[in-house]
Amino acid sequence: MGRPLPLAAIAPNPLVVNVSARHCHLTPAAVEVLFGKGHQLQVHKPLYQAGHFAAKEAVTLIGPRSRVISNLRILGPCREFNQVELAYTDAVALGFEIPLRLSGNIQDTPGCMLMGPSGFFEMKQGAIRAARHVHMHPVDAEFYGVKNGDEMKLRIGGSCGIVLDKMLCRVDKSFKLEVHIDTDEGNACNLQPETPCELIK
Amino acid sequence: MGRPLPLAAIAPNPLVVNVSARHCHLTPAAVEVLFGKGHQLQVHKPLYQAGHFAAKEAVTLIGPRSRVISNLRILGPCREFNQVELAYTDAVALGFEIPLRLSGNIQDTPGCMLMGPSGFFEMKQGAIRAARHVHMHPVDAEFYGVKNGDEMKLRIGGSCGIVLDKMLCRVDKSFKLEVHIDTDEGNACNLQPETPCELIK
Repeated sequence: MGRPLPLAAIAPNPLVVNVSARHCHLTPAAVEVLFGKGHQLQVHKPLYQAGHFAAKEAVTLIGPRSRVISNLRILGPCREFNQVELAYTDAVALGFEIPLRLSGNIQDTPGCMLMGPSGFFEMKQGAIRAARHVHMHPVDAEFYGVKNGDEMKLRIGGSCGIVLDKMLCRVDKSFKLEVHIDTDEGNACNLQPETPCELIK
Repeated sequence: MGRPLPLAAIAPNPLVVNVSARHCHLTPAAVEVLFGKGHQLQVHKPLYQAGHFAAKEAVTLIGPRSRVISNLRILGPCREFNQVELAYTDAVALGFEIPLRLSGNIQDTPGCMLMGPSGFFEMKQGAIRAARHVHMHPVDAEFYGVKNGDEMKLRIGGSCGIVLDKMLCRVDKSFKLEVHIDTDEGNACNLQPETPCELIK
């Protein structure tokens, strides 16, 4: 038709946008305290990023005012630090304030108590709202003209569409193109599988 | 400095953006069933729009799967129809799907049960997510160059800023300039009193 193709049609990889419900990442030591000596996480469902999975195991989160969130899913594999990722709506329900942080950057963040079938594990810190981000393979980064650490925007269409600013680009050869937003962001725009999404600079 | 002033500096009225937590509007008949014959809503806190208020009274909402939300605030004064306004996160927690509707447009929407100190009231319909909107006095509408029923965007700044599309303009001589968004939208961008906001066409 003589018109340029939309960017998505010529992109090297399809844009996948996934909503991360609240979850946690745990060390092997925390898993043993919560689920018993020698316990290893079982795969419930593989995630889009290779090697990552939602575990069969979940814990109960006890907030600073003794309010509780049950069935907080553990994501595997285990990491070298413990981190709980909540939406702000979750934090309000629990009655505490959590900062917006990049995953892994948990110094001076609030802690919480986790409860599993074998015991309690006290996290001294690590409760955060994870900053929105996009995983990119270097091929994707090159296509969109960005580098690791840059920020993009995500335009989400539909009857209550939004544009999310400050979408951090995380570029690695092991990554597949995927945006991670939380339930507040996903519910603000009622993101559904068929909702049109576009990454813009 | 020779640069044009930002729009907000020359606007006839300050832009107020308020987050509406889940709440309900009730008829006088529903209030009597829930709180007793002849009961009238008491003012807990006046709202920004003249004559509107958060009532002292709250009800318990019972969803279709017997899940419950306590302390659902009633907003007054009473209306000619019953309506429950929830965020999608609330609806997910209750376990049902609610449509995005303009306030008052509740035909063929799901119902729910309300419980008060004097009894139960079954709403046959009226559970919605209220579409984001901006109340405007005609002076504001003229300034922004819009008319009743038009849509604008709201840009919200800060460390997790967003742009909300499809912000419906509701123009009336009784209105003061005020945007209403829900808790999903407010929490998606961590809206705080000092967060910069801008209405754009």
